[in-house]
Amino acid sequence: MTWIDVPGFHADAPFGPQTLPYGLVRVDGRPTPAVRVGDHALPLRGLADVLGPRLAELVVQDSLDPLLACDASIWRELRERLRTLTAESTAPRGARLIPLGDLRPSLPFTVGDYVDFYSSRHHAENVGRILRPDSAPLLPNWTHLPVGYHGRSGTVVVSGTDVVRPHGQRRPPGTELPVFGPSTRLDIEAEVGFVCGGAVAGGVSTAEAEDHVFGVALVNDWSARDIQAWEYQPLGPFLGKSFATSIAAWITPLAAFDHARVSPQAPPHDLLDYLMEDRPAGLDLRLEISWNGTVVSRPPFAAMSWSFAQQLAHLSVNGATVRPGDLFASGTVSGPLRAERGSFLELSWGGAEPIELADGARRTFLADGDSVVVTATAPGPNGSVVGLAEVAGTVRPAASA
Amino acid sequence: MTWIDVPGFHADAPFGPQTLPYGLVRVDGRPTPAVRVGDHALPLRGLADVLGPRLAELVVQDSLDPLLACDASIWRELRERLRTLTAESTAPRGARLIPLGDLRPSLPFTVGDYVDFYSSRHHAENVGRILRPDSAPLLPNWTHLPVGYHGRSGTVVVSGTDVVRPHGQRRPPGTELPVFGPSTRLDIEAEVGFVCGGAVAGGVSTAEAEDHVFGVALVNDWSARDIQAWEYQPLGPFLGKSFATSIAAWITPLAAFDHARVSPQAPPHDLLDYLMEDRPAGLDLRLEISWNGTVVSRPPFAAMSWSFAQQLAHLSVNGATVRPGDLFASGTVSGPLRAERGSFLELSWGGAEPIELADGARRTFLADGDSVVVTATAPGPNGSVVGLAEVAGTVRPAASA
Repeated sequence: MTWIDVPGFHADAPFGPQTLPYGLVRVDGRPTPAVRVGDHALPLRGLADVLGPRLAELVVQDSLDPLLACDASIWRELRERLRTLTAESTAPRGARLIPLGDLRPSLPFTVGDYVDFYSSRHHAENVGRILRPDSAPLLPNWTHLPVGYHGRSGTVVVSGTDVVRPHGQRRPPGTELPVFGPSTRLDIEAEVGFVCGGAVAGGVSTAEAEDHVFGVALVNDWSARDIQAWEYQPLGPFLGKSFATSIAAWITPLAAFDHARVSPQAPPHDLLDYLMEDRPAGLDLRLEISWNGTVVSRPPFAAMSWSFAQQLAHLSVNGATVRPGDLFASGTVSGPLRAERGSFLELSWGGAEPIELADGARRTFLADGDSVVVTATAPGPNGSVVGLAEVAGTVRPAASA
Repeated sequence: MTWIDVPGFHADAPFGPQTLPYGLVRVDGRPTPAVRVGDHALPLRGLADVLGPRLAELVVQDSLDPLLACDASIWRELRERLRTLTAESTAPRGARLIPLGDLRPSLPFTVGDYVDFYSSRHHAENVGRILRPDSAPLLPNWTHLPVGYHGRSGTVVVSGTDVVRPHGQRRPPGTELPVFGPSTRLDIEAEVGFVCGGAVAGGVSTAEAEDHVFGVALVNDWSARDIQAWEYQPLGPFLGKSFATSIAAWITPLAAFDHARVSPQAPPHDLLDYLMEDRPAGLDLRLEISWNGTVVSRPPFAAMSWSFAQQLAHLSVNGATVRPGDLFASGTVSGPLRAERGSFLELSWGGAEPIELADGARRTFLADGDSVVVTATAPGPNGSVVGLAEVAGTVRPAASA
């Protein structure tokens, strides 16, 4: 029996000792790195003495930034140390457990560059069919490289932050001139994000990618489809995405997913050498999307066509450097089935097929006041389950103009 | 006669007292904010005592970040103070002048988000004609909003930094499969960059834009056209741009361009309200592009269709926040004439019409070892000229694979 006697901290629960994700919480008015144990947070600042000088220096900080900047060997060392500490029978000096409900988590790291990929073939084909019905659903480059683009890092917000419906230009169907106003097609994109760490480096190979990914966190890339449709050619999405991107408050170390490794979906042809991987870097994460409490989809991350290692290798193959705090996300996770689609654009097939919620409401896109929660689990060691903390958000009405 | 007796610091020179741009230099091994006077730098750390406590705090820093975070009133106060100090007949205590040739400047601020616009109609039409010869050169949205996208802030480098030719995927004309290797169509984009400052804010109006733009600096958005052509649909440019973006070492305060204000080119129809401006925010900057010492183009910034105020209003109209250190660039500056085009893609018309340099060499895209320097001037007060510091770079061969 460990000293941590709180609900959800056991090997059969998603936030048991096999998971131990990192976040940032406020204790006595001051931010401190923390690790999640079941439904409690264990602030690490208080454990500085117990952790020894090298690790202590990383946990007495106001964010996870210094930890992210360390080598992967330090990440492993801290994780091992925390596994030991949380397994002991008596509480270490300075330990304190705080119920998650008492905390308002903060964005745990400074986001460098934010890149959003587009690595679900099912999603790309669905979007192609809905938005470009007259052309082939998949463009020729899609199977040769992980298509992606840069998003706005300054508007990445922590889970729980309300999202204000954005204003913008849109061109209603059948009209020539754009109109201005609140988006009428506000959507989500359920995604998996990867938080970079380690030394600043360009040309990261698929094998080296493991040393440059600190951890995994769920992402909701809120999307205003009407704004996006009007603006996105020829330079890609901009204001249809840049108002907000939510990320979970807890980042799970990549090492927690050792038992969840799968091969990405096989491409229809050989890949260029730099995209080949020795160790499969796909992940068998099972996502779940709740809309006002109704589970509307269960997207399987194992159905993705490009892994985080391939994404990182591609992103840096031109020499572009990757810094600690850079964030890249998978793109919307959609599986082959209707109930596995990761956006409401797809679930409602462009708004044509409303989704019925448990309270009888029918929705196509988001209404003011709606809440969306995305969670996920993955296979862990010895039949356990590794949880990914929720990314949640509620839509607030557009600001008055 | 002022105490600053150095070449180029007089009212008839581009870096005279009407200009006074800010940069970051190393003095005694330590970075210090500085102001440029002619061909010398005046480090500001040494002037802390003379500037008084409020301004002193901003100049004893390791970057311009704290200055950028101030209100515009502080920017004006510091500029006035420096105009007075540099006009006095005796040197203030702590003053020191260092020839620019003795210094290696640093990137003077931490780049937040980097947005690149596409606001020259001539450029957009040229690119449309070259890359999409079968469709209308300008897409329908272009005249209604300043098209733009997010670039990679982590690879913004200071002028003088060598640029390594990037590797990447490209699909040679007439083939089906992509190949991998160094870019064969490495290009420049001569642009004007705007460095944001002031309070963090969303929904910045065109009138408020003045208080959120700290200064102006030339930008070269290096572009690998072959990588870009293969990757850019449907989400926009990514690796074709993300390897490097150069910015001048000296940022000229917006206030220096009060005499350079012009209206942006009139749109062919009314604009939506949020894009209207009371005070014209176009700028009559005259750019000059040198390729290995030969002037190959003189792009007129007055020919742009969207101003910095319209760009910033658009960028934030969806509620996206703008932070100190955010950078946005105009997009390639091209005028209506052939000798006014701001990229080699346009100057060589897609590689079909080589450009002859002074040494007899003929070029379409960049060769290893080539150097490109972009400079600019603007009308200043009383017939003077305000200079924009050069953005320069030399191409190094691709890294061995």
